[in-house]
Order: sequence, then structure tokens, then C-alpha cells
Amino acid sequence: MSKISFSSDYTKGAHPKILEALSDNNFNQMPGYGTDEICERAKDKIRKACECPEAEIFFLLGGTQTNQTVIDMLLKPYEGVIAAGTGHIAVHEAGAIEFSGHKVLTISPAGAETDTERYGSEIGKINAEELKAYVQAFYSDDNHEHMVFPGAVYISHPTEYGTLYTKKELTDISKVCRELDLPLFLDGARLGYGLMSKRTDVTLKDIAELTDVFYIGGTKVGALFGEAVVFPKGFPTKHPVPIIKQHGALLAKGWILGLQFDTLFTDDLYFEISKNAIEMAELLKEHLKEKGYRFLLDSPTNQQFVAIDKEKLKEIEPYVGYSYWQNFSESQVVIRLATDWATTKEDIDKLMQYL
Amino acid sequence: MSKISFSSDYTKGAHPKILEALSDNNFNQMPGYGTDEICERAKDKIRKACECPEAEIFFLLGGTQTNQTVIDMLLKPYEGVIAAGTGHIAVHEAGAIEFSGHKVLTISPAGAETDTERYGSEIGKINAEELKAYVQAFYSDDNHEHMVFPGAVYISHPTEYGTLYTKKELTDISKVCRELDLPLFLDGARLGYGLMSKRTDVTLKDIAELTDVFYIGGTKVGALFGEAVVFPKGFPTKHPVPIIKQHGALLAKGWILGLQFDTLFTDDLYFEISKNAIEMAELLKEHLKEKGYRFLLDSPTNQQFVAIDKEKLKEIEPYVGYSYWQNFSESQVVIRLATDWATTKEDIDKLMQYL
Amino acid sequence: MSKISFSSDYTKGAHPKILEALSDNNFNQMPGYGTDEICERAKDKIRKACECPEAEIFFLLGGTQTNQTVIDMLLKPYEGVIAAGTGHIAVHEAGAIEFSGHKVLTISPAGAETDTERYGSEIGKINAEELKAYVQAFYSDDNHEHMVFPGAVYISHPTEYGTLYTKKELTDISKVCRELDLPLFLDGARLGYGLMSKRTDVTLKDIAELTDVFYIGGTKVGALFGEAVVFPKGFPTKHPVPIIKQHGALLAKGWILGLQFDTLFTDDLYFEISKNAIEMAELLKEHLKEKGYRFLLDSPTNQQFVAIDKEKLKEIEPYVGYSYWQNFSESQVVIRLATDWATTKEDIDKLMQYL
Amino acid sequence: MSKISFSSDYTKGAHPKILEALSDNNFNQMPGYGTDEICERAKDKIRKACECPEAEIFFLLGGTQTNQTVIDMLLKPYEGVIAAGTGHIAVHEAGAIEFSGHKVLTISPAGAETDTERYGSEIGKINAEELKAYVQAFYSDDNHEHMVFPGAVYISHPTEYGTLYTKKELTDISKVCRELDLPLFLDGARLGYGLMSKRTDVTLKDIAELTDVFYIGGTKVGALFGEAVVFPKGFPTKHPVPIIKQHGALLAKGWILGLQFDTLFTDDLYFEISKNAIEMAELLKEHLKEKGYRFLLDSPTNQQFVAIDKEKLKEIEPYVGYSYWQNFSESQVVIRLATDWATTKEDIDKLMQYL
Repeated sequence: MSKISFSSDYTKGAHPKILEALSDNNFNQMPGYGTDEICERAKDKIRKACECPEAEIFFLLGGTQTNQTVIDMLLKPYEGVIAAGTGHIAVHEAGAIEFSGHKVLTISPAGAETDTERYGSEIGKINAEELKAYVQAFYSDDNHEHMVFPGAVYISHPTEYGTLYTKKELTDISKVCRELDLPLFLDGARLGYGLMSKRTDVTLKDIAELTDVFYIGGTKVGALFGEAVVFPKGFPTKHPVPIIKQHGALLAKGWILGLQFDTLFTDDLYFEISKNAIEMAELLKEHLKEKGYRFLLDSPTNQQFVAIDKEKLKEIEPYVGYSYWQNFSESQVVIRLATDWATTKEDIDKLMQYL
Repeated sequence: MSKISFSSDYTKGAHPKILEALSDNNFNQMPGYGTDEICERAKDKIRKACECPEAEIFFLLGGTQTNQTVIDMLLKPYEGVIAAGTGHIAVHEAGAIEFSGHKVLTISPAGAETDTERYGSEIGKINAEELKAYVQAFYSDDNHEHMVFPGAVYISHPTEYGTLYTKKELTDISKVCRELDLPLFLDGARLGYGLMSKRTDVTLKDIAELTDVFYIGGTKVGALFGEAVVFPKGFPTKHPVPIIKQHGALLAKGWILGLQFDTLFTDDLYFEISKNAIEMAELLKEHLKEKGYRFLLDSPTNQQFVAIDKEKLKEIEPYVGYSYWQNFSESQVVIRLATDWATTKEDIDKLMQYL
Repeated sequence: MSKISFSSDYTKGAHPKILEALSDNNFNQMPGYGTDEICERAKDKIRKACECPEAEIFFLLGGTQTNQTVIDMLLKPYEGVIAAGTGHIAVHEAGAIEFSGHKVLTISPAGAETDTERYGSEIGKINAEELKAYVQAFYSDDNHEHMVFPGAVYISHPTEYGTLYTKKELTDISKVCRELDLPLFLDGARLGYGLMSKRTDVTLKDIAELTDVFYIGGTKVGALFGEAVVFPKGFPTKHPVPIIKQHGALLAKGWILGLQFDTLFTDDLYFEISKNAIEMAELLKEHLKEKGYRFLLDSPTNQQFVAIDKEKLKEIEPYVGYSYWQNFSESQVVIRLATDWATTKEDIDKLMQYL
Repeated sequence: MSKISFSSDYTKGAHPKILEALSDNNFNQMPGYGTDEICERAKDKIRKACECPEAEIFFLLGGTQTNQTVIDMLLKPYEGVIAAGTGHIAVHEAGAIEFSGHKVLTISPAGAETDTERYGSEIGKINAEELKAYVQAFYSDDNHEHMVFPGAVYISHPTEYGTLYTKKELTDISKVCRELDLPLFLDGARLGYGLMSKRTDVTLKDIAELTDVFYIGGTKVGALFGEAVVFPKGFPTKHPVPIIKQHGALLAKGWILGLQFDTLFTDDLYFEISKNAIEMAELLKEHLKEKGYRFLLDSPTNQQFVAIDKEKLKEIEPYVGYSYWQNFSESQVVIRLATDWATTKEDIDKLMQYL
């Protein structure tokens, strides 16, 4: 019997409709680099879903590439990007932002690994007051011309800890950003799972209204790969193409990206399959609670952070795929279990046989 | 009736066997970032095909990304890469090499557009003597510590003009590179079409023996996308992964790349479909010659550079996709017509109805 | 009456002997870029002073330039430099390290501005245990290939807070660095003031033995400008010159730098004038203590961090130059007062008239 | 008897008035980083000399640093800078432009070393037609979004070959630049020697009117070091300081730069001493012609390129400093002899004893 994995939300291929669409279009000759009609069609559907007819959109291949390219488009050479200390760009992108010449300015602690008490709904997020205070302190420092200027703000939704901004929180951050003339960039690698959470009041339209650029993650939400980058108010540069190319991020067969988002944004497929991941996560949580498991935090999305005995973990190792997250106590560690667009009740049942 | 396109070799999707493999593996859960068994299997098959059991291999997504990442791995900060003036990295990558801090040192003219006489089999290539002379002149210059050091050599095979190195030429370049301690990098975006040309004596094994790194192009040769980067003598760095990640080039679902190369290197599929492109190119050339067309050069691979009356071109425009290449004479221009892994005799017949 | 300034240690020109040497050599024709005999002579004197005959040395122009160039020489592209959160490279160099593609990995808090209690002798420093723990945690993280590799360690001595490492502390850090194969770089912008502190057991020879590269600051210690970069065990690169040139850091008239260090390292001038700054700082501290002033920390070098009433500060503003440092309490702020190589007792007396 | 050197114009220190001013101001305490009154005074004098009251100015330390910093300020990330193939930034700055991420787009041949016939007054220069044709060809290329955008134009005056633009030529280039919205940057490392040439119709005011940024070279024209960067129409960025800092180019004691330009632009000192170099060059040329020497080209400035027998050269080697330039014929090579602000008739006489 093969191992079942909840280690991440990118262990499987794509929604079957995407593979079907690939097959159907396989021999239709397409112009290169995303200049095709399918990409246009996908963009239109996304604009509609965002209720943002004037949005500019392009498609990239993965998260780090997207973060690097977008941030590079937003910043002047002497500017850095503000992020939570736990932000993906601050920790897990091998210095991709610094590689393109910019500092990540962290404004929240980088995840105090042992202090389990502090993991509330704030973990992974920044807040408007802190952001404002940081920027004001910067400009009131006599030496600020010798420091890295804050040039944009990066947030992720859901965050790396599966937490979500409330509409109020997002609105406050957006307001501060506009006051301070800082573009706001929302990393939506798992956006679908955020939007379909049962505990969110944030819609796709809200995000389009409140940010300057965000991306709709495909890789982790039903696509083979791909992220749709949306600039609700237009591009920050006259020539996005050479910047994308320069980052090695311009796919020759760009239509493959367009086709996937065209499929995902037909008949609300993106939202439906996102909803599945949420429902399966809720089911898993229920089961785990019943069995007395404790959680690192109360995650409202598809990633669940579960405390587990070290002994138990060794036991299930051969049968269950998981991600080690951090220490929890002497005898326990935290593992991440992620559901996804294709997780079934049977998968959950199977998993629970071991937990 | 839909337009038929010979504009490039990346207008179609993938060989059906690849789509089939994707479907078959769609719900098999895989570890991320190319650490899976399919990638290992693909690497083994490539090692066998190269007769180079100790080769190190990774998979990337496209040509510019590959050129940028590999060159960045080869060079020290104060070094540049030597290339033909017509080289892809010198002209058509939006400065991706400079973006990562390195100069492209060009040693051949950048394609004298009007002088049609000079387009012989040399076009697009560098030669060993010229290379050696360049490097010797560099080191004999008193001021060379104030200049960009030559740190690696980039060649493409086939070149941007579809031309090929002979085994003798490649051996000579390789010898000079080893004498001068310069790693030799061969861009094989269209490698299959080079290897299956009827007028080549260069094999995959030769390339593995004569270069320090090369890539086997998938995007233009039957894959949805993807390039297999082969280091016959091992990686030039202890940690290729963070370098790849830093370039935004590490695909979460790396197995999709492995799967494609696993398919292409099963039962010689890569070679067979490459051969098809060559046969179709030869057929096309024959037909065109019969009709009296002239060529910019005598290309031995899948790209053909045909002189055509401007009037005629306007006429076929609505029916035929082509790439404008350059001026030829007062009344004629050169267009590129590219066959590929999926071109059929019917496609050629259809095209010839217009030419 | 002109304002007297204790705002920094770079408000004056150079020691008169340096101006004299410049005059004396003004019309002696010198070869360019530091290839002259005066530079060689200066290097020899520095080697002697360090008791390190095989050291390699070059001269640069200022601190940020030196930090950027040296760190770039030490690191591989995927590596970052470890520093205290208060380190100059982390805070006050406008992102010069990130500009050259590298992340600053901070391992100590970035100076908790309000918590005055915590300013002990540790402020501004890193310690060996913390360093070792950081690097071990990095390598034991399963995802470390997706993170920035620690590639070198940056410390300053004296630190930005005027504090000093003990020989024991420095030895421990050095040991950890060697165990972990991390080059240790000591920023000595104010090195003279550190070496001549009455409360140090660290000598120049110790520094040459315990670090892989350090610089002897001239700009703040009697030179017009200039820093002598010393690699006790040789250069980390075969070609330092093009790297320096690439950073815009190669002075045409390099002999001007050599001449200054030749002068400073003749008859112990560097040490003598450094001693003066220390004596004047001690005198100032004494006077201030007598008058009941409190200090942010007990600085053993030429920078003193004094708490002062906001009202009082307004009063002395027209007559005294100082550097605002940070808040201290409701009614007080901390200012920095720096003595230097040329401060006289009369200067101190004059200053004390206002304090 | 010590060797006399004509190898370059940066072999000596500074005009005695500069050393004097340094002495006079040595103990006047100055604020850091060029925020002092002396810098302001120097800027005012330069504005007056340029007849350009609204010019913005800053001071940097050397040529490569200035070229790198200014070009980085002018360009967007996806842009390169157009230059002659012989331009300093293209050949002799160790890739400093590429280090900061930009390509040098060369539009003239890189100096055909053996073809002595072609060295006319054009050598080292670009021309307006060629420039316009290059940019138009770029934009008319269907693939230009995959190429490096031309973002600024770099010229040097005098050029690396000592040649000068005429006012007509400069006006034509300026016109093309404005039509094409390309900032024009003039490298004036030897500007004084250009302005005081007996064969120029270009004034400092012309340069301020026709360019967007230029620099007045101090290092080679009487200063210890330093270049005054002038933006006649204001800075291209809101925050030049962090950009300068990021390039390691912000001198702590910025007043030393200001002081030198204040001295040079008092009582026309800069122009007078430049004139001396020209007169000495003319005298040298006269003497050499009388003795039958041939020249590589007819240089109107302080650098003279003289053909000399290889035998003869060996003979004078112990007594005369020169720069080897290039081959001339079987038996002859070209050497560069440079006069400067301090060259005397006695120096010329002494030199002629050997030639």
C-alpha cells in the first residue's frame, strides 16, 4: 500500500479538466510568450472574477519567481520591501530578493519557535499600526538617507501559518500604504484556500480594491503550475515583458499558463476546488480534536499545525507524509498537514487510521 | 480554414505520450522540487544516452532561465562569458546575463545584415582560433585587470541560424577551452534537431565528452516545456539548489519536468521526433528549391531561411505563419520557416500551396 | 565664536604629518592604482605592526565601500553574511550589501531603543554560542537549501556602540568560525580607538591571528580618508583588482592612500593619536560623571553615549555639535559625543562650559 | 636622475593651492557626507561657470565610480547604455556597469587595432546618425521586448583617444537624444583639456545645455582626486544620496571634494591649468614632428599617440615613462604621451633628449 501524503498542497498534478484542456489544445498552434487568445480569455475571466475590468495581468510559473519579479518591478534601486519576519520572501526563497538587489525589511518577529503561547491569529501577519510606526520612525531618523528606504509592502494571505487577514485588518493596512505611498503586494500562493475559508470576510474583489498587486496561486490550487499576477490599477512599469524576461520568467509557451487559468476561472472551478480543501481540513481538524490532539494555532485554512508525540511520529513515518514544522514541547513536535483541491474523505479516513 | 504556422518550433503542446504520462501520474503524490523518483529515473536515462554515468543533471523551465542560471554558476563575479555576437544570450534575452552581473564578451560579428554573401556554414558560430586569440590578447594586455576576465565560453548547437559545429570544430574549441581553463557551455535548445541532422558527425556522447555543461532542449523538441541541464563532470558548485532557487527557477512540482524527460528518453522518442523535424525540413527545402527559391544559408537543421518577394509575402500573410528574419534585397526579405517534432507531410503540402 | 563639535570622529582633516607627506611627494610621479613603492612600504609597516609577514593588504576609501567589497569577495552568490542586528552593514549602509546581491543575516536584536536596562557590554556584539547555534540550526533545518547560507561573519571592533570584544570572546568567535568554515571579517573603522582603550586585552596581532580579514580605519583615525584592508592569510580570490574596480573602489592615485598609512604606521603615530582620543574620552567621562550625567552604557572607547535633558539640549544646540542617538526617558534623550585623534583638553573644557 | 613620466595625467598629486586649502581648513570641523558649506560654495561656482543656475551637483571620487553611479541613476532595470565600442565603460572598467545590472550597448567598432588608416577625428566618438539608426532599428524589431532597451547615451569628451566632438556634432547627438527621450551623459574625466584645446568650439555652457548629466574631471586635472557630477536640469531621482551610498561612493569627509572644486573654480584655476597641459602637448607635438615622428591620429588634447621604433623604445625605457597603446607596423608601436596641469617646458626638453 502506497504512502498517503499530507505533507503539502503541491504533491499532485492538476485538476483533470486542465489536463483535458491541454490535450484538446495540444496541436492548435499558438503564438509565443503569452501573446495568444487563450491568455486573453483567461485574463478577462480573472478581471470579471475580481470585478476589476481595468486590471493588467500576466502569468508566471511559481511563487519565488513571482515574488522576485513583482517586487523588482515595484521598487526603486534604493528601496527595500517590508514583510513579516516569517514571510516567505524573508526566510524561504534562498535570498531571491537580495539577489535582485533589494533588502527585505522585517517588521515582526521571525517566529519565536519555543514560545507556543504566542501563536494567535496574528502569527504570520503584519499590522497597520506597526507598519505605520516603522515607516514614520524611518523618516524621522536623521540618518534615513543612509538606510534602506521602505518601498513596498509584502503580505501573504493565507500566511505561511495558514492565518488570514480580516477585511478590517486588510483595509487598515491598505489605508496606511496609500497614505505613505507604498504599493501593497499580496502573495496569494494559496489564495483560493483563503477565500473559501469559513472564517473569512475577505473577497477577491476586496483584494483587488485594497492592494496594488496580488497573485492568484495556481500551483497549489489545482494547476500543474502557474500564478496569475494581477495589477488592479495597471502595471507599475511601461515594459513588464523585458523585466520578466530578464528574470528568466517568460515562458515560450505562455498559452499553457493561460489555458490553466482559463480552465480554473470557468464555472468557478477555482473556488469549488478550493472549498474542497477547506472542507477536508475542517473534517481533519474535527477528527483530530476528537482524539485529543492539540494545535499550534487555530488555522482557518487548508494547513493544519498539529502537535504530536515524537514516538507516535516515528510509528506513522512509513505510512504518512507530513512536514516537520517545529518543536512544541519535550515530548512533542508540530507537524504540518495540508489538504488540497483533490483531497477526499477517503484520504482523511486513511490518515486517521494512523493518527 | 485555420492558418498553418511554421513561425517557430514552439507553437504546439507536447508529444501525446507526455500528456499521457502526465495523466497517468496525476494523482501519484510526489515530493517537491525535483527530489522524486521520476526525476532520478529520467536522469539515469539521460546519463545512459550520453554514455556518461557520472553526469550531474537538473531540470529547468526554459532557455533564458537556463542560460542565466548556468552561466551564473560557472562565472566568478569579475568574469564574463564569451559568445558569438549572434548568440542568444548576446541579443535576445533582454539582458538576463547582465541582470545577474556578468558581461557577454562577443567575439564574432553580430550578423552583418545586408552582406548576404557571407552567410556560410560559419554564421552563428565561433571558432577555436578566434577564441584562443581573444583570450591570449586579453592576458597579454597590460590593463587586463581593469577589464572583464573571460570566464566561460557559450556556444549554441544548432546555432540561432540553424548551423552546426562539426566534430572537428567542437573538438578544437573544447581543446582551447581546456588549455585556457575555461568551462565550455553548449546551449542545446534545439539539440535534437542538431543531433538528427543528416549533415552532422556530432553525437550526444561527443557533446558530453567535449563540454563542461550543456542542455538538452525539451521546449522546442516535444516537451510542454523544460530543459535538461547536464554537467558531464559534475556540478561546478557544492550547492546548485539555492542558486537555482535564487534565480526563481526551482519548480515546486519538479517531477513534471522529470516526467517529460523520462518519456522523451524512453525508446529513443527524443531522437525519433527530432528526426521527423529534419525530414520535414529537407522535404520543404526540396520543394522550395524546385520552385526556385533562394536561401540565406544552407541550414542543415529544422530552421530554413528563405528569401521571398515582399509582394508574395503580403499575399500569403493571412494563411501562413512565419518569422520575419531580415532584409535580403530591394525586393526580397528573408523569412524563417521552422519544422518541428510534429510537422507532417500534409503540413508541408499545405504550406507549399501558398509558396 | 565658532561651534565646537563632538558629533563624530570624522569632522576634521588629517594629522599634519600626513598633509606634510602629501606636500613632500606632490610632484613625485607615481604609477597608478596602488602599484607604487609607497603603498608597498606602507603594507610592510602594517605587516610588521600586525606581526603577520605574509598578510595581503589593499587600501580602500571608506567604510561602506570596504564592507561591500570585502564581503562580496568572501561570499559565494547564494551566501549571506552574519552580523549583529545593530551592525553598520545591517542598518546604515543604504543596502550596499543587498545591492551586491547578498543578505545580511542578523543574529542579535537590532537595538531595543527603549529598554535602557539592557545596555551592557554586550550591546553591538555577537557571541560565539549564539553564532554557533544559528549556524547549527540552519544546517539542521530540512529546508536549508531554500534559505540563505551563512557564508561569513561580520563583527565590528569597537562596535557601533563603542563596546569591545575581550580576547576571550574574540577567540571563541574565531574558533566557532574555523570549526564552521566561515571567514571572520572585523570592521575596524575605529580600530585604533579599540586597541588603545584602557579596558582591552586585544592587540593588533591578536586580530591578525583570529580573523580572516579586517580593516584598519584611517578616515576616523587621523587620515584624510582611507582604510587598510588586511588579509592575514592571503586574499580569498586570485584577482582582487577587478573586483575592487567593479565596485568603483580602485583609486587612480592609490599612492595617496599608501602615503597616509605609511605616515600613520611610522613611529607608532596611529597608536599615539588613537591614545589621545581615549584619554580625552576618559577625561570627558570623568567631568560628566562629576556633574551627575548618566550614560546609556559604559563605553570603553572614544564614543560616549550621554543622557541629557531635552531642555538642556535645546540650550546648548547653538554652541555644541553632537549626534542624536535615541530616546532615554520622558525628559531625556541620549546623545553621542565622540572624541578623536585631535581633540584637546581645551576642547573638553570648552564643551564642559555648556554641559 | 629620476625617471620622467608622460605615461598618464594622474601621476602627480594636486595643484599646490589645493594642498594649501586643505591645510588651511584642516581643523575646521565640518559636517559629514558633503552637507557642508564648502561643498555648497563649490557647487555655486560650478553653476556659475556652467551658466546654469538650477544645476544639481554632487561630488564623487573617481571615473569608474562616477560612470557606474550615474548610469545606474539614469537607467531603468531593463535598459542598457549606448556607448562607442572604445568607450571607457565598454572596455576598461572591469564590468562595473554589468556589475550593477546593465548592458553596455556598443554602436561603433571597438578600435580595429591594426588598420591605422582609419584613425581620423572620428575615433572614440559616436555620431548622431548612427545613434538614431541604432535606436530606430531597435524599436522596429518585432522582438525588441526580448532585447535590452536603450536607456541612455554615454559619450566621453575628450574621448579615450583624445579626440573632441565639435559643437555641431554634440548638438546633433543632443537633438537625437531628446527626440528619442534618451538622457545624454558626458564623461568629462579630462574635460578641462577638451575645453582648452585650441581646436574646439565647445564651451562648458554648451555642455550644460546639450547634456542631461556630465562630470568635470578633477583627478586628471589638478585635484588630488574627485569628479564633479553636474545635472543641468536636476537629479533624475528623488534620492541620490542612498544610491550613492549603495555604490560605496559617499565620502564621509565630503568637504575634501568640495574644497578641491572650490579651489579649482576660483579665479579660473581649472581652465588655466588645463590650458598649460594643452600648450605643453602642442609644444611636444611640434618637437616630435620636427624629428619626423608619425602619429596614430591628430589629437587636439593632452594625450598624444606617437609611433616609435621598437628598438628606440627599449633604449629609452629606463628614463622615460609612457603608456603602451597598440601596434603600428612591423617595426613600430604606438605609445601614449600625456601632458598634464603641471607639465613644464623643462619636462618637455628633458623628454626630447631621449626621443
